[in-house]
Amino acid sequence: MSKTRITVAKGDGIGPEIMDATLRIILAAGAQIEIDEIEVGEKVYLAGNTAGISKEAWDTIIRNKIFLKAPITTPQGGGYKSLNVTTRKTLALYANVRPCRSLHPFVETKHPVMDVVIIRENEEDLYAGIEHQQTDEVVQCLKLISRPGSEKIIRYAFEYARAYNRKKVTCFTKDNIMKQTDGLFHKIFDEIGAEYPDIEKEHWIVDIGAAKLADTPEAFDVIVMPNLYGDVLSDVAAQITGSVGLAGSANIGDEYAMFEAIHGSAPRRAGQNVANPSGLLQGAILMLIHIGQGDVAERVQNAWLKTLEDGIHTYDIYKEGVSKQKVGTSEFADAVIARL
Amino acid sequence: MSKTRITVAKGDGIGPEIMDATLRIILAAGAQIEIDEIEVGEKVYLAGNTAGISKEAWDTIIRNKIFLKAPITTPQGGGYKSLNVTTRKTLALYANVRPCRSLHPFVETKHPVMDVVIIRENEEDLYAGIEHQQTDEVVQCLKLISRPGSEKIIRYAFEYARAYNRKKVTCFTKDNIMKQTDGLFHKIFDEIGAEYPDIEKEHWIVDIGAAKLADTPEAFDVIVMPNLYGDVLSDVAAQITGSVGLAGSANIGDEYAMFEAIHGSAPRRAGQNVANPSGLLQGAILMLIHIGQGDVAERVQNAWLKTLEDGIHTYDIYKEGVSKQKVGTSEFADAVIARL
Ligand SMILES: CC(C)[C@H](C(=O)O)[C@@H](O)C(=O)O
Ligand SMILES: CC(C)[C@H](C(=O)O)[C@@H](O)C(=O)O
Repeated sequence: MSKTRITVAKGDGIGPEIMDATLRIILAAGAQIEIDEIEVGEKVYLAGNTAGISKEAWDTIIRNKIFLKAPITTPQGGGYKSLNVTTRKTLALYANVRPCRSLHPFVETKHPVMDVVIIRENEEDLYAGIEHQQTDEVVQCLKLISRPGSEKIIRYAFEYARAYNRKKVTCFTKDNIMKQTDGLFHKIFDEIGAEYPDIEKEHWIVDIGAAKLADTPEAFDVIVMPNLYGDVLSDVAAQITGSVGLAGSANIGDEYAMFEAIHGSAPRRAGQNVANPSGLLQGAILMLIHIGQGDVAERVQNAWLKTLEDGIHTYDIYKEGVSKQKVGTSEFADAVIARL
Repeated sequence: MSKTRITVAKGDGIGPEIMDATLRIILAAGAQIEIDEIEVGEKVYLAGNTAGISKEAWDTIIRNKIFLKAPITTPQGGGYKSLNVTTRKTLALYANVRPCRSLHPFVETKHPVMDVVIIRENEEDLYAGIEHQQTDEVVQCLKLISRPGSEKIIRYAFEYARAYNRKKVTCFTKDNIMKQTDGLFHKIFDEIGAEYPDIEKEHWIVDIGAAKLADTPEAFDVIVMPNLYGDVLSDVAAQITGSVGLAGSANIGDEYAMFEAIHGSAPRRAGQNVANPSGLLQGAILMLIHIGQGDVAERVQNAWLKTLEDGIHTYDIYKEGVSKQKVGTSEFADAVIARL
């Protein structure tokens, strides 16, 4: 099998540690990949590049098409652009897929039977990044929703549901207030949903939908939503499975794809070998499936599940009575590798 | 004691039932109020008034200054304006205060020790209501944040914390993306926070903040945030105390005030005498405090707590083993009145 060349960025904060753990695990499992490492994020920003990425690094991403990215830190202040958002938009990664599943009884959670996939629109909404100062005292940001963008993500959600044998697709919007923008998203959900008679459909206003998700996540299956709601509610969904550190994310476009953890760079935990590499590992598993190495993905997933089942837990999911051993980032990786 | 004249709207869906229950309870408790009832909502909309309210009804609201409002239904479709939002903006009700407290062990909840007050900016953000169609396929909505608006709500949150002996005020924004709009809100939080050295302050990006709120609400005290985040996260917070039907809300301005439940009109439950009147009753309690009838408010609150403690529960919070008796809306009101 020929190797797939991928781009890897180790990022900031806990990024390098969780990336090392992730790469060690997938390579040990037999991932057929060749790695081009690029430098992005804080160091690049602070060296004066407000985009956080060099021209050469971009060329590498474009050439390889597949990008595995650790969390990065964007410095505070007006001048810096979020590289996450730039990458998603420049590469037209319109779908952000975030599976959030409970691993009860192996990982402590108040929501033992949840298995939700959040499919988040990834290019539009308030993330269009258009902000301006209108007067000395008034600032504005544009929320943008387009028909093609909404069609693409909503069709993706229904196709995903079919491919993964999911029964229901739910849509969240605030279209009782944003009748034109969120109204368009909801309308297109109804239109496209009609083409999928085999799949159950429902819509909730995002406020009460979010409340239900936080309280009874077992009532949901696939949920599709505009960018910002998806940002907030995927963190909620991941966290209530046990930890925001457990979920990975696939950013999918027609030509490119980027894989990452859903959490941030957690600078306060950096360099201490404590972070949970599971989120990025889950991102890497989604990548392996995407590049046609589903067998390797399955091997990694099973070893990862076995590690958690054996109670070998990082601090974020460690609970007396459930966990057996509290381990650091690299020991967790060793434990997964031992179970491959 | 002279009576306070208030405006009451019974609203749509479950509105009339929960309003009847609420008024019966507070009058039985000795509330010194005189009531002007107005008609707003669905019937008015469908009679061709796209604002959902008549000129005379507005005049009544303006004259009485205090408005107790049941949930209303805004018909689907582009032409209708949300009366909730119109009222908040026209009356300059800049602060939306939503206390969300668990009543463990009397009401079943996964979060037994939570006691959070969400203070939501109530006039700006995407609720400014400025949407337009840019091209055939692109629609936009303006998110607006102003310095005076942000100062007002943030100062309100700190003053509230002081008045109610709260230890911490947390701010949620997405200022890593919306650097100008949410950035301004965050900056003003830091500025005004500095004037309150006695109160602990913290800021979370709204995604991870929401995740923490949904998972460990006991870590929060007062939380101040822009309008839309507050809309979504107050429903989340209320729901995880046991039911979105338990929380009331005070919409406070310099001259006017409106009190309501935080939930909607639940048309599917209407006319069945099943709805939980607690949310609107909590709104009424906040109103009684606001108009200087704190003694009556306390009497109502204690009787309400005793009713819940006695396991007399509406369907939404009924749980075998915790609840003793499943009651309807009017029986719940009777039970509260019997405990005054
Ligand atoms: C880091 C940030 C720009 C990003 C986002 O808001 O999308 C993150 O929160 C995420 O969810 O991937
Ligand atoms: C009915 C709706 C306009 C309202 C809002 O979005 O503010 C409601 O959800 C609330 O939270 O009071």
